[in-house]
Amino acid sequence: MSAPLFTLTTDFGAASGYPAQMKGVLLAARPDARIVDVSHDVPRHDLLAGALLLEACVPWFPRSAIHLAVVDPGVGTARRALCAVDPEGRRFLAPDNGLLTPLLAPGTRAFAIAPGGALPPPRSATFHGRDLFAPAAVLLAAGADPASLGPAVEDPVLLPWPRAEARAGEVRGESLAADPFGNLVTSIRDADLAGGQVERVEVDGCPARWVRTFADGHPGELLAMIGSGGRVEIAVREASAAALLGRTRGCTIRLVLVRAEGAC
Amino acid sequence: MSAPLFTLTTDFGAASGYPAQMKGVLLAARPDARIVDVSHDVPRHDLLAGALLLEACVPWFPRSAIHLAVVDPGVGTARRALCAVDPEGRRFLAPDNGLLTPLLAPGTRAFAIAPGGALPPPRSATFHGRDLFAPAAVLLAAGADPASLGPAVEDPVLLPWPRAEARAGEVRGESLAADPFGNLVTSIRDADLAGGQVERVEVDGCPARWVRTFADGHPGELLAMIGSGGRVEIAVREASAAALLGRTRGCTIRLVLVRAEGAC
Amino acid sequence: MSAPLFTLTTDFGAASGYPAQMKGVLLAARPDARIVDVSHDVPRHDLLAGALLLEACVPWFPRSAIHLAVVDPGVGTARRALCAVDPEGRRFLAPDNGLLTPLLAPGTRAFAIAPGGALPPPRSATFHGRDLFAPAAVLLAAGADPASLGPAVEDPVLLPWPRAEARAGEVRGESLAADPFGNLVTSIRDADLAGGQVERVEVDGCPARWVRTFADGHPGELLAMIGSGGRVEIAVREASAAALLGRTRGCTIRLVLVRAEGAC
Repeated sequence: MSAPLFTLTTDFGAASGYPAQMKGVLLAARPDARIVDVSHDVPRHDLLAGALLLEACVPWFPRSAIHLAVVDPGVGTARRALCAVDPEGRRFLAPDNGLLTPLLAPGTRAFAIAPGGALPPPRSATFHGRDLFAPAAVLLAAGADPASLGPAVEDPVLLPWPRAEARAGEVRGESLAADPFGNLVTSIRDADLAGGQVERVEVDGCPARWVRTFADGHPGELLAMIGSGGRVEIAVREASAAALLGRTRGCTIRLVLVRAEGAC
Repeated sequence: MSAPLFTLTTDFGAASGYPAQMKGVLLAARPDARIVDVSHDVPRHDLLAGALLLEACVPWFPRSAIHLAVVDPGVGTARRALCAVDPEGRRFLAPDNGLLTPLLAPGTRAFAIAPGGALPPPRSATFHGRDLFAPAAVLLAAGADPASLGPAVEDPVLLPWPRAEARAGEVRGESLAADPFGNLVTSIRDADLAGGQVERVEVDGCPARWVRTFADGHPGELLAMIGSGGRVEIAVREASAAALLGRTRGCTIRLVLVRAEGAC
Repeated sequence: MSAPLFTLTTDFGAASGYPAQMKGVLLAARPDARIVDVSHDVPRHDLLAGALLLEACVPWFPRSAIHLAVVDPGVGTARRALCAVDPEGRRFLAPDNGLLTPLLAPGTRAFAIAPGGALPPPRSATFHGRDLFAPAAVLLAAGADPASLGPAVEDPVLLPWPRAEARAGEVRGESLAADPFGNLVTSIRDADLAGGQVERVEVDGCPARWVRTFADGHPGELLAMIGSGGRVEIAVREASAAALLGRTRGCTIRLVLVRAEGAC
């Protein structure tokens, strides 16, 4: 049994003491645990923001990591609690509310964690992160078969997942979330460009410039580029695109491609 | 000597570099140390908030953990520096200013850390977290007897500790602190209800509804429930009770119990 | 190969997911890694603030630690990426933009990290923390010679470094940055006093009182003292000097020394 690696992604607030209680449970059972905070400041109850953060971060961790994710407006209701295992063996624990949407690759198996059995009875109705997901993570780390945690789930809840629309020489999408710099990630992925070169960019109808990196921009200029997570991002050099545009979600993005124009 | 586990609870600010300096001292002495941040954003100089946070978090950690807590408006004065060991062997290091109040269970032994001896001379007059408590924690982790750190303290400073008043069919208390969701923890504990069922709740004279969990509430409705730390909490579903009530501390809470009414 | 210790200092925001991605890279390569966050909330793109934070924190870590520091407005430009090794063996990875200024002690060797060779090709143009510095840190932790990372750099970029001016009985300097308490660190170091006793302090022409620690002050009174990092700090007991003075950088500080006055 090698030292387990757990990651935590929540909207609890880093200073709330709630992440610390989860860590206490993990470390009481596994003094050798390594625990990494992905974020405890996911915008409150914002499942899409949490899902995008997980999408960006999970691939960089070892596949053996166990990811706990708790953004959970429905805690205490009948919503299911999921354990999911993707085809590469990554393990996820999260409420069944769509938070795992981008991680449920084809072939992922999911199970509804059933309290009882090897799991201790929950200590509260309001803190499944500590009372359900952390104990389940401890079982997984000890080698428990995910299927032993509860019945299979064939229909995990999925968020409507914003995708780009590609057609005749252009790709359209929308902004989804801001990082702390005010850079906006969008629903357009690198692959949506299909190798095409971007000639023109519009953000909410205003022109932006396609660049390789922030530093290629002029102060105050709206920029678009492939961000570090493989999504098109809207940015302003050393300033906040979110502040400039006045919002983070729902800006329409239009990329006009060179290749397509040449084909006209 | 197994790998020591230290927890840190301060009001230094996570980004201030002060927690990192404490960790540097711990890791320089004990490269095998595991360190968990409980919070570095306790409201500045708020001893009650810090004490409540410790009360909520400490029980979830292994008893072998060494807890460093520094909310310390009096650093550099003659206030004593405490090392305390509770009857279950938990070890605490903190200024003697009441911060440990809820953790000083009967039978806890306390000592006033005396610089000198095995401790290095303090490097500053203003940063005991790094210069006194962290080195003391290293000694404890190496197996030092807490009594070797300094003279016994029979009268540790205690905060006036807010408690509920139970009488003829009702329990009264007050709000004490808010978590980042704006949920208010109160001075009423689960045990204060003595198994009675709550029929009516008033918060500052306004009605609130007794529920099992957040999701049982309607949007905008003031709720009361047993929180995950065993205290009655005041909450609003997917919103902030603190914002709704306009304050976090000092709201009067009144719970009317069914059992008592039946006895009238 | 003992377990490596990495520290991270960035302006990415603790909740952004970017620090987590760096940790994922480090842990994927070195499951035994210990990682300490110095801060992820260095004021955005503020090289001086980042440099002062590193100056304050680095000395407390074991010399074997590998320090990654990324405050990097020029990411993606031709600015060099540095690996530096000081005469005591401390290793630093940071953009060559002055962020390491106070750590480049005489005798420090520096190298410009050249992608390629043992380093994987960068995965993005905008996130060298994850794609360049973290992989380079992994190589160093595995024992790679810093010189193997790229060509020697004889002229690392240095920030103009604010220093105190000492003359006939007084020392002048300026405020540089605030900690989360609102205490201002200044360009005057303990050593600049040359053992002289401070008789009078002026901050932007207003009198302040020289004390040993915060608690020696009266409420609202402007104080000056030797801070825990060896720099003169300006503070207000249980309040924010930055708020009182209305700014954090550029306040003029004047210390009049007793010894000098006696010599007049």
